Amino acid sequence: MKLIRYGLPGQEKPGILQGTQRYDVSAFGEDYNEAFFEHDGLQRLAQFVRANASQLPLVADTERLGPPVARPSKIVCIGLNYSDHAREVGATPPVEPVLFLKSTTALVGPFDDIIIPRNSVKTDWEVELAVVIGKRASYVEEADAAGYIAGYTLHNDVSEREFQMERSGTWDKGKGCDTFAPVGPFLATPDEVGDVDNLRLWLTLNGTMVQDGTTANLIFNIPFIIAYVSQFMTLLPGDIISTGTPAGVGLGFKPPVYLQPGDVVELGIDGLGTSRQVLKAYAG
Amino acid sequence: MKLIRYGLPGQEKPGILQGTQRYDVSAFGEDYNEAFFEHDGLQRLAQFVRANASQLPLVADTERLGPPVARPSKIVCIGLNYSDHAREVGATPPVEPVLFLKSTTALVGPFDDIIIPRNSVKTDWEVELAVVIGKRASYVEEADAAGYIAGYTLHNDVSEREFQMERSGTWDKGKGCDTFAPVGPFLATPDEVGDVDNLRLWLTLNGTMVQDGTTANLIFNIPFIIAYVSQFMTLLPGDIISTGTPAGVGLGFKPPVYLQPGDVVELGIDGLGTSRQVLKAYAG
Repeated sequence: MKLIRYGLPGQEKPGILQGTQRYDVSAFGEDYNEAFFEHDGLQRLAQFVRANASQLPLVADTERLGPPVARPSKIVCIGLNYSDHAREVGATPPVEPVLFLKSTTALVGPFDDIIIPRNSVKTDWEVELAVVIGKRASYVEEADAAGYIAGYTLHNDVSEREFQMERSGTWDKGKGCDTFAPVGPFLATPDEVGDVDNLRLWLTLNGTMVQDGTTANLIFNIPFIIAYVSQFMTLLPGDIISTGTPAGVGLGFKPPVYLQPGDVVELGIDGLGTSRQVLKAYAG
Repeated sequence: MKLIRYGLPGQEKPGILQGTQRYDVSAFGEDYNEAFFEHDGLQRLAQFVRANASQLPLVADTERLGPPVARPSKIVCIGLNYSDHAREVGATPPVEPVLFLKSTTALVGPFDDIIIPRNSVKTDWEVELAVVIGKRASYVEEADAAGYIAGYTLHNDVSEREFQMERSGTWDKGKGCDTFAPVGPFLATPDEVGDVDNLRLWLTLNGTMVQDGTTANLIFNIPFIIAYVSQFMTLLPGDIISTGTPAGVGLGFKPPVYLQPGDVVELGIDGLGTSRQVLKAYAG
């Protein structure tokens, strides 16, 4: 199953994607939020879709897509989780996962604009495979981790490098700006994805390929990450874990390349679709 | 006005505190959450209380108190914001605020147990003045910041120093463990607090005073902090900003002193009441 949310920001309705057709499932009566995942929403939704397959309303392709899950309790990100990316930014590959939190107010739809914050000169891109948690996870064993996964989605972990690394304190300052978490186009349940340890992921800047990696190169794989994070905090249903980015971010270029108003980034992961964002200057 | 939430974890009901009496305001029909603060809940609640003053049910003193606000979108913390604390941990006072995020799953009531995480040997205390945001704040000017404050509350920013500083990556790993954010006993609106720049705050460990500071020593004061944080992320109604801790944390002792099962911490801030937590070992 592939879940979408569509409509105006903050007023998204639930839908599903079948092939290239979008269907409205508002009649199911639930948003894709913590309560949905906690109470076996995916199973119940699948039953609803089977029972109503012939009468689901189509959703126009012109409808905006929102993030495929409602605002979660947290977005946990894994830093430096591809060795080629660690090298390009001059970091040593970590001996255990680097964690940081991304403010959930950063969450936007997959085709929404990215707003370059006021005073930003180092806004950067990061294509990432994100995992959506399906049930409350605390002190999970790696061998059991698969049972805690609701599905996978595409995430651009947009980052302001000056805010992140040159402005005192932790990375969080440069990771949680508004619009810095375009997620989607859809949430795919694990059965839709195939071998999650062997997915190509890529990102183009104004049509030029800048990131072209594979999840086969993840330093810490997804079951390990889920088990690891759950030692430090309880993951709630609907929470997002973003698993890190491969080489090719703007910070890694010599000299570095950062995003400018009018730039276009497109990104994708095998089986998880593509997204596209246009950069805009903050104009408050 | 002083707001409380009481009852079983996850099932808290809204109340108010007047003098030493607790009153139930369930009939008001709203929890103290994002929607409450966003839609002038404090004003409407004050009207409700005036209109129903003679018939509000009493709440027994034996009822557990929860955190005085529902789980917010985020808990933003300011690090090293008292120069004496920066010195004791060997850090240079920052030239601009240090930010990190505390997982909101850490939030618990003011008299709940603190659970020492599995494999933790460096669980530590931090008494802090926390600000609750009253309305959506983005690129706020310092001069306008007071208008974004719903009120103040007491927070123990519990921290695992090994997780925070010795386990790869950002501080978030040692700040967001379950039960690491005891908040309350109540949320006080600004009119209840007096001069917020001159409040004594203190913490005792097993009856011995270990922290005894004053908000007069904040490096960055509250209007500056609100304006500053709002440059990097939008603050939502109900969000919590914790403003940092004065000297006297366990990490600052020579040798360091960390929390053990059975230890008792009590803390307080002038006008914001006191809280008390007993340390327990994780026993999953």
